[in-house]
Formats: sequence, C-alpha cells, structure tokens
Amino acid sequence: MSNTKEASGMSSSVEWRIQVGEGSKEILVPESKNSVLRLFAALKGLIMKFMLKVCNFFKKAWKIGVDDPRKFAHCLRVGVALCVVSLFYYMRPLYEGVGGNAIWAVMTVVVVFEYTVGATLYKSLNRICATCLAGFLAIGVHWVASQSGTKFEPLILGASVFLLASAATFSKFIPVVKARFDYGVTIFILTFSLVSVSGYRVEKLLEMANQRLATIIIGTALCMVTAMVVYPIWAGEELHFLIIRNMDKVSDSLDSCVADYFKEDKANPNSDEACSKNLEAYKSALNSKGSEDAMANFARWEPAHGLFTFNHPWKYYLKVGAALRNCAYCIEALNSCLYSDTKSPDFVKIHLADACSTVSSNSSEIIKELAQTIKTMTRSSQIDMSVIKLNDSVQLLHENLKSLSTLLIQEKVPESNTNENERKESVLTVSLMDVIPLVSFASLLIEIAGRVEGLVEAVEDLAKLANFKPAADEKPGLKSID
Amino acid sequence: MSNTKEASGMSSSVEWRIQVGEGSKEILVPESKNSVLRLFAALKGLIMKFMLKVCNFFKKAWKIGVDDPRKFAHCLRVGVALCVVSLFYYMRPLYEGVGGNAIWAVMTVVVVFEYTVGATLYKSLNRICATCLAGFLAIGVHWVASQSGTKFEPLILGASVFLLASAATFSKFIPVVKARFDYGVTIFILTFSLVSVSGYRVEKLLEMANQRLATIIIGTALCMVTAMVVYPIWAGEELHFLIIRNMDKVSDSLDSCVADYFKEDKANPNSDEACSKNLEAYKSALNSKGSEDAMANFARWEPAHGLFTFNHPWKYYLKVGAALRNCAYCIEALNSCLYSDTKSPDFVKIHLADACSTVSSNSSEIIKELAQTIKTMTRSSQIDMSVIKLNDSVQLLHENLKSLSTLLIQEKVPESNTNENERKESVLTVSLMDVIPLVSFASLLIEIAGRVEGLVEAVEDLAKLANFKPAADEKPGLKSID
Repeated sequence: MSNTKEASGMSSSVEWRIQVGEGSKEILVPESKNSVLRLFAALKGLIMKFMLKVCNFFKKAWKIGVDDPRKFAHCLRVGVALCVVSLFYYMRPLYEGVGGNAIWAVMTVVVVFEYTVGATLYKSLNRICATCLAGFLAIGVHWVASQSGTKFEPLILGASVFLLASAATFSKFIPVVKARFDYGVTIFILTFSLVSVSGYRVEKLLEMANQRLATIIIGTALCMVTAMVVYPIWAGEELHFLIIRNMDKVSDSLDSCVADYFKEDKANPNSDEACSKNLEAYKSALNSKGSEDAMANFARWEPAHGLFTFNHPWKYYLKVGAALRNCAYCIEALNSCLYSDTKSPDFVKIHLADACSTVSSNSSEIIKELAQTIKTMTRSSQIDMSVIKLNDSVQLLHENLKSLSTLLIQEKVPESNTNENERKESVLTVSLMDVIPLVSFASLLIEIAGRVEGLVEAVEDLAKLANFKPAADEKPGLKSID
Repeated sequence: MSNTKEASGMSSSVEWRIQVGEGSKEILVPESKNSVLRLFAALKGLIMKFMLKVCNFFKKAWKIGVDDPRKFAHCLRVGVALCVVSLFYYMRPLYEGVGGNAIWAVMTVVVVFEYTVGATLYKSLNRICATCLAGFLAIGVHWVASQSGTKFEPLILGASVFLLASAATFSKFIPVVKARFDYGVTIFILTFSLVSVSGYRVEKLLEMANQRLATIIIGTALCMVTAMVVYPIWAGEELHFLIIRNMDKVSDSLDSCVADYFKEDKANPNSDEACSKNLEAYKSALNSKGSEDAMANFARWEPAHGLFTFNHPWKYYLKVGAALRNCAYCIEALNSCLYSDTKSPDFVKIHLADACSTVSSNSSEIIKELAQTIKTMTRSSQIDMSVIKLNDSVQLLHENLKSLSTLLIQEKVPESNTNENERKESVLTVSLMDVIPLVSFASLLIEIAGRVEGLVEAVEDLAKLANFKPAADEKPGLKSID
C-alpha cells in the first residue's frame, strides 16, 4: 500500500511538472485512477484524524461527567424542563390560555435554568421583578406619549428608551448592582424597549403584557421548582465544600512541602508522584477567589436548605477563603525553597527538622480541624488547645534557631598550637551562607503559623454568626482552661 | 420643636398603655392631631434618611463614571443603538420589510451589546452562528417529524428537544466550549426549541426563520459597527494596559516595601499614606487573574486594531500575568516581614541595606522596563544589561550575607584575662535570632530577583510572538555584548 502510494506520489509529481510546463489538463486523464486513489487515501487519512480528535474530545467530555455525575443530572433536568414547557405548545387548551405567547415560557426556561439553585433563583427573581417594573413603566410612558399627539409620540417614546437604557446600562458598572442585579438590568432594558416600542403597533397592550408576564412566571416557576426539587445543587453547599476542600488541600501541601524539604533522598523533589501532586494542591486555593465570590453571590438567594438557614453568613465564608489564601501565598514562597540552589548541611538540618516538622504538622492539623469544624458545623473543643500547642511549637522552633549559633560556632583547639594551655578558638563550622535557606524556610513556617491563627479567627467569626453547634465532647473541666 | 415632640411622645406612650389596658380605639381620637404630627415627623426623618442614602449612591455612581468617562460613552452608545433599531418599528416600510419580526432586532441589540468590542463580537458571532445552525437543524427535524404522521410528530419533536438540549447543556461543562461558545450554546438551545416547537403551529416556518435571521443579523451588525466605530473599547487593549498597570504597581510595591523596611523611623509603617498605598498596590496583580482570562477570551475575537494584529498572541499576556503574579506572591511574603515582632539591630541592617536596596531597585527597574517594552511594543536594548546588573547585585547581596558572619563574630580580648598573651575569644555580638528576620527578608529578595527573571523570559516570548519592534537605539557595539 505504502509502495503504491509512493509510486503514485512520484508519478504524479512528474505529472504535475509536465502539467505546469505545458499548462494543459488532458495529461491527467491516463493517471486519473491513481489520482482518485490518492485523493481517497488522503481523504481517508483526514477523516481518520478528525474521527480520532472527535473521539478524544468525547472521551474527555465523558470523563468530566463521570467525575461529577451531577453534571449529567443537570443536563437531564434541563431537557425535562424544556419538554414540560413545550407541552404548552402541544396542548391546545394550554396554548390558547396564554394567547400564543407560550414562546416566552420556553425562552425563559432556556435562559434562566442554571446549574445551581442560587443562580436559577437569582435569574428567575431578577427576570420577574425586572419584567414587572419595566412593563409598568413602559405602559405609563406609553400612556403619556399617546396623550401628547401623534407628532410627539415617537419622540417621547424614543427619548424615554434612550434615557432609561443609558441609565440602566450605567447602573451595571456599580459593583453592588453588578453583583446582584446584573441580569435584572438587562431584562429591564429588554422589556422596556420591547413594550414601549411595540406599544406603538400592538393595540391590546395591557392584555399582551399580562399574558407575557404570565408565561414568564410559568417558566420561572417551573425552573425554580425543578431546580429545587429534582437533584438540587445548592450554590451555598458548593461554596461550603469548596472552602473545606481547599483547606484540606492547603494543609496537605504544607505537610508534604516540609516532609519533602527534610527527607533524606533529595535527588529529585518530584520523585514521588503523589507527593508532587500534594505539593501543588495549594494552588487551587490561590485560584478560587472568582468562583468563591460567584457562589457566595448566588447562595444569598437560596432558601434554607440542609444545614443552612436563609440568612446564612455566606460573606464570612469569603473571609475564611481570604485567610486561607493568605496561608497559601506563604506556602507558595515555602515551596520555592525546595528548588533553592544552596542546600544547608545535613547536621544543621537535623538540628531544626523536628521543630519545623512539629510547627508544620501542628499548623496543618489546625487547618484540618477547622475544615472539620466547618464540615460538621460543630465547634471543636480542641481548637484552643491546638493553638496553644502550635504556639508552643513555634516557641520551640524559635529556641532551636537561637541555639543554632552554639551549633555553628564550635570551640576547638587550634592544631598549630599544641601546648597544654587552655587557649581555645571559636570557629564557624559552616558558612552562615549555607544556613540561610534553612533559616528562611523556618521563618516562613513561623509566618505561616501566624497566618493559621488568622484563619482560626476567621472560622471563629463564621462559627459565631452561623450558630455552629457547641462541641459534643466539651467537658466543663476542659472549658475552664479556655 | 423637639420639646413638643418629646411631650407628644410621652403623652402618646401613656395613651398606648391605656389603650392596651382597655383594648379600645376611641381613646386615640383626642390625641389624633399629635399623632399625625408625630407620624409626619417620623416619615420626614425616614424620607430624609432615604434621600441621603440615594444621594450617596448617586455620588458614588457619578464618581465611577468620572473616573473612567468611557463608561458614560458606552451608556450613550447603547442608548443610540437602541433608538436606531427602534426606527424599524416607527418606520412602516422597514417594519413591513421584516414582517413584524422587528422585535428580534431590538432584543438582539439589548442582549448582545457589551462594553468591549471583543465581547460584542463574541456574542454577535455566537448568536448568528448558533441561530443558523439550530434553525437548519430544527427545520430538518421538523420535516422528518411531519413525514411520520400526526401520532409520532410530537413525540419525535419532544425527543429531539430533550436530547439536543441535554447534550448542548452538557457541552457547557467542557472548558473550551465554556470559554468560547457559552453564549452560542444557550442561543442554540433557545432557537432549536423555539423553532422546532413553534413549527408545530406556525405554518410558514421557512419564511419566519428567514425573517428572524434577517432581524438578528440587522441587530448584530448594528451592534458590531457601533461598538467598533463609536468610541471603541477593545478588550485586547484593556488586557494590554491592565498587565502594564499591574507591572508598574508590583514594581512600586517592591520599592516601597524595601524602603519601608530600611527607613530609620520605624514607629509606624503606615505613617506615610502614599507609601502605604504603594505597599498594597501589588494586591491588584494578585486578584486580576479572572479579568485577565476574560479579556484574553474576548480579545481573541477582535480584528486588527491599533498596534495589534488579528492573531496577536493574547495567550502570552496571560503567561506574563502569571509570571507577574508569581513575583507578587513573594512580595506578599516580603510585606509581612514589615510587621514582624523581632527587629534586627540597626548596625546589621546597615550592613545589608545597600545591597538589598540595589537588588530591589534593580528588580523593580527591570519590571518597569518590561512594562515599557510591552507599552511601546519595542524591545528594550538595555534589558540584558539590566539582568546582568541584577545578577551582579544578587551576587553582592550573597557576599554581604556571607560577610555577615564576620560582623557578628567579633574577636575580643576577654576582660578577665589581662596578660599580654595573644589569647583572643570569638563572641557573638548579637544573637543569631535577631538577624533571622533580616536574613529571611534578604533571601526573599533573592527569590524575587529569580522570579523577575522568569518575568523577563515571559515578556521575551511575548515579544518574539508579537513581533515587537527592535530597540530603536540599539547600537552594534552594544549588541555584541548580549
């Protein structure tokens, strides 16, 4: 096959040269069978390549769904909701009930149905309120315009559209409006323009507005009910678990970073794949500000569900997230120590290894405990003890750092001077330079410990405002220690 | 006035008590004048409060516009575009030309017109393509359904809506589709559902689809032209200047952080307001990942404009942004050194101050130079020299750190031993502990210098791919040094 192809390729290249030379097309005729074969092979190759790409794409897409089956569920929900709303078209009584405006119900479902309940509610409520407000306003403006004669009517309508559209567009630049009513403002402009403009033509304005509102309410109600009843995905819950996941990741990263720094075989810091995966885990905390903000915005709209009340202090989750990111920034700097060129000598490392490991394990334990506190929504009885333990270990690390000087400066008898005098000399056994990476590693760890305390405070605030349950195993004796 | 109010307040509270006691309403009658006054005053207070709030809100909103007048311009553009598209309604020939479907043009303008050209193009092109694709598909499905008898028709239509809507919704979870075609997928589902469902009722399906497509094209064309011609705001340019601004901010932060650390009056690190503002400037680089991603996504759709070609390597701006964020993480850690409890003794600080300042000023100069490179899109002839200078200064700081040991360990003759022997003792003049904050500060600076080199590489890559102009003042003599 490949031989044939090569041959045909060669002969045709000769063909082409001749063709170019003579500029005629007839010469291709005797070779047409070969050409067709070649074309066919090329086409086959292209198709195979394309199929492979499509296959890969679908494999990846399938993996996304398998990793989080709720995504499949959401797609089915959307399909079902759309089919239900389509019934308005297929069933004549329903269709005539809304005067042929069933199209708006379908449109509403497509546009309003989002992945999380919060987002769906946000869009639904925004759509209903904005439609009502804009509708009434437009009818009012239309009435005023109709009173002022046919000459001024288009002018008044045009001016009102211009002014309100500009003002509403501007309001989107205001952060509060952007966060809570962005979609509503769009719908406001849309409805106002549609009603006030089409009011110029359509006679039965009020009736139309009435039917349109009814269809929108039908559509949004369907979406809200489906979103809340069928396999609901709550934005608040997502935020809750995102923060918890990120906490676990940051704590894992911290652990494996310190373990990696002090481990004996330093040939390749990435030798262990699981470890290197843990090392990078903190990055997900660094990059999740955007999704945290978005989810907190949506969670605001959600009714009480599961462990969360209607006015759950979602804003405080953002503060916890920010405190966690603060820790992650430091871990980022800590991580770069792993790849530093100058390595500290082993005996100095051993001197600090225990204290450093204790600080890091205490820090990461506290982060894990806080994650557990948020997860169970139950205050931990041990958190204060853990903080004390962390402070103690930081103190110990401080002392170890202090005693580092005695380790570095050894008194020894100079060899050149052998008389039995008590003369001694203090010399540095290692250059200070070699110790610097280790010292900065240790002081970063101390900084992280400080930031972990900031995280403890943030979680404390959240626990207060969200009325976390008191610790189950809290004993009066232990309490008095706090 | 306040006396009267107080008196009326007291008397009415007596009244209320009596009222509660007796449960009758008549007793209010003699006091009704006072009550009305009180109510009026309370109402007045409420209204005043509300007015104040509204006033403040408008002041803030006005400030947003004054700070960036392009926002005002955008609002006026939207107003004008909407008025122009409304003409379709007011002018009978135009109105009849699109068969009463002018409503879709208005809707398109409202939904598609965005702040940046890129976003407008993204939505416009997505809308047109998705509408075409979904329209053809829906008509095809409708034809198949109509061939299969009245019994199967609704079933086939319903099943197709369910399947396609579910699949399209799922495709939104795929990152590539989400980034480039999110809006298109929504419009696809919308159009497919509308056409295939309303096809069951509306007889002149093809004609309707034709008119609808025409109105959408009219709307999007109007938006695209307005966005590109009237005071255009290019997403690419925004991204370009955002990166440059962030670079300047990071470099300012670095400078003022180091200046703050070594300045003599350490009473209050925030005493100077301008300085403290600079100190926090780097945070804007930390938090701009989301907007950078969004703008790079939109910039992809923009035609050549200003200095940028159609295929400008926007992706590489993201890499520059990531490298810059890498520097900012370290500056964050550096910043926390300012608030450390242990302060290093002044004479040690003075020993390192010059070297540290040189490293930081060299680093920040390089960042500023890179910002200038991107701004003018002209390669800098000095960047290689600057990097060499930076490396030299890092080397110097390394050496200063090394010589720190000689500073710390002073040889002195013990006082107790006064004989003229050459016996000397080495003692640490300061505890190593006190030097640690300074040492970690210095090693963070060295780490930042390393990351600045990463930034240089990222900008270099961008310069290569975006065909930055060669340096204007590049001399052959200088070139040979590189």
